[in-house]
Amino acid sequence: MSEISYLTFSSERLVEFSQRTFEYFGVPSQDARLAAEVLARSDLRGIESHGVARLHTYFDMLQLGRINPKPEIKIIRESPSTATVDGDNGLGLVVGPRANEIAMNKASQVGTGWVSVCNTNHYGIAGYYVLEALKRDLIGWAMTNSTKLVAPLWGGERMLGTNPIAIAFPGKKEPPIVIDLATSACAYGKVEMAKRKEQPVPAGWIIDQAGHVSENPLDMINGGALLPLGSFREMGGHKGYCLAAMVDILCCVLSGANWGPFAPPFALRQEIPSRSVGRGIGHFFGAMSIEAFIDLDEFKTQIDEWIAVFRGTKPQPGSPGVIVPGDPEREAEAIRSKDGIPLVLPVVEELRDISRQTGIPFE
Amino acid sequence: MSEISYLTFSSERLVEFSQRTFEYFGVPSQDARLAAEVLARSDLRGIESHGVARLHTYFDMLQLGRINPKPEIKIIRESPSTATVDGDNGLGLVVGPRANEIAMNKASQVGTGWVSVCNTNHYGIAGYYVLEALKRDLIGWAMTNSTKLVAPLWGGERMLGTNPIAIAFPGKKEPPIVIDLATSACAYGKVEMAKRKEQPVPAGWIIDQAGHVSENPLDMINGGALLPLGSFREMGGHKGYCLAAMVDILCCVLSGANWGPFAPPFALRQEIPSRSVGRGIGHFFGAMSIEAFIDLDEFKTQIDEWIAVFRGTKPQPGSPGVIVPGDPEREAEAIRSKDGIPLVLPVVEELRDISRQTGIPFE
Repeated sequence: MSEISYLTFSSERLVEFSQRTFEYFGVPSQDARLAAEVLARSDLRGIESHGVARLHTYFDMLQLGRINPKPEIKIIRESPSTATVDGDNGLGLVVGPRANEIAMNKASQVGTGWVSVCNTNHYGIAGYYVLEALKRDLIGWAMTNSTKLVAPLWGGERMLGTNPIAIAFPGKKEPPIVIDLATSACAYGKVEMAKRKEQPVPAGWIIDQAGHVSENPLDMINGGALLPLGSFREMGGHKGYCLAAMVDILCCVLSGANWGPFAPPFALRQEIPSRSVGRGIGHFFGAMSIEAFIDLDEFKTQIDEWIAVFRGTKPQPGSPGVIVPGDPEREAEAIRSKDGIPLVLPVVEELRDISRQTGIPFE
Repeated sequence: MSEISYLTFSSERLVEFSQRTFEYFGVPSQDARLAAEVLARSDLRGIESHGVARLHTYFDMLQLGRINPKPEIKIIRESPSTATVDGDNGLGLVVGPRANEIAMNKASQVGTGWVSVCNTNHYGIAGYYVLEALKRDLIGWAMTNSTKLVAPLWGGERMLGTNPIAIAFPGKKEPPIVIDLATSACAYGKVEMAKRKEQPVPAGWIIDQAGHVSENPLDMINGGALLPLGSFREMGGHKGYCLAAMVDILCCVLSGANWGPFAPPFALRQEIPSRSVGRGIGHFFGAMSIEAFIDLDEFKTQIDEWIAVFRGTKPQPGSPGVIVPGDPEREAEAIRSKDGIPLVLPVVEELRDISRQTGIPFE
């Protein structure tokens, strides 16, 4: 088992470096700043896999011309409470916030807004978007598909992305309830971490290339698949598959993006799908005006009460006791805003490589 | 291990008996018919736990005056794309379809409709409502809370209902994709069935009264709890808890109903909550016009393709291979429409008891 070393950077430092990296490829300053902030928010909230650890991948995609640095983001169909957005193959980190804003504006106008997005790319953490909605006292929803990694129940190969669902509800004195979950049994990052530590993974996380349940992380990484939330039929694996399918259809079939196994690859080493059934990957955003349903103050007061009651649940013996969705990420953000973002050395090396190739100073 | 015996009845016969039972308590004929049809749809689709197996409970609740047979269902707040409905403590089987219709009408008008409902009671299967939306080529959503049965992750007691999520998407030549899942690891009915068969349940389904993981179904029934989808932290149990919380808040906090552990009991043997934080239980319905996002024909054609591609997934060795959400229920419906509904003897006895008490002929 090898030790893991970290170097620590302030969030501001990483935002600046990411912004300049995006600008290097002609991304307009305002967009580059926005994209850098979405990435940084992920690192701040402790979801390292979706933060600057991905900057080199965005760098590769921009360098190869696979992402359009100056997209013309367009509404291609619209109704009072809905829109379909074509992201013109821009950075998901830019297309996502724009589409989310359309949903929020519609919520302010007609009670709710729902936006399905095609022709886009990876958009960071789903949680970012629902936190934006909270700033306007809206209930925010965000989903996205992604490159295939997950087998449907009873399937022996990758067919779906980890297809996250996020939703958030504001409290009054309490911090908000922020839900952000992948519909797979575990995150791909956890399998990679187990490989790095040379540890087995629990039965129910992965299958190997032949479709057999495995505890060896390499079996998944070398052509196997993640299992859906619930893992096995008896434990509800069909439910994780259903949720991933729901996200896939709302994000992609509804917008005209590439669904299921046809989601285009994000990283260079990922295989190119056998065919294209739409444009880019897809996102789905929702925003709901609380005032359209109930007095905002009454809602927030009840959310505070909900939080207090759930925190007061009799704990399961030997467990830390019940927490509220969003607690771990909020705690990470409090610490990292103060102490900085710890990056593992391989990620630091990737940022140094960008610096060498672009001339943008990093350290 | 004891054998289980069945008697078989036509769906029409059960609809008629249920309708007359509701009418016996003064439920208007049209409402009684609707309620009976919602129940029957559950039996037809093979979800016996939510069909006439519950008629005696509705009977008890009506007899005790705990359900209002003639509710005045009211919209208490409204925006172009939303409504909050007060069900006036009516049958959920009547309030649910009415509220769902409001959502569908709004979808036809402004692209989507979203309705949160308070002061209602159990509404049958969530799947019923999304099938109604399919009749109008809408994407339907349905959720409900219910009496507490499920522990949050790391909790040692019942705090949430099995809080289902349903959503459906229409195909063109293919039958629709119909998702209807409880956010618990397993259904309560499966624990009861294991008890009846004197069999253990898998580790991860339940905890006992002290909060310890158990494989003895009696431990759950006698004051323990179901576990959320994912079961344990390592397997994603926090995700099942998050989804149940989402349903709880959308159905109850947003409408002013009783959330979490305060959902009023449905059956006589269930404990009365320590306090009330709203009115009745809550539902949440959504309806989305597909045409508001994309050409209906294009959507349906892609759904057919989605279904074909997923059916073609390389199967996991030793499994039946990948199926499409809604397949099992549709197959059950095809068989049961023809051959009738098999009811276990205890359920038949309950219907006979209603017949004895009301004079409505049953057999």
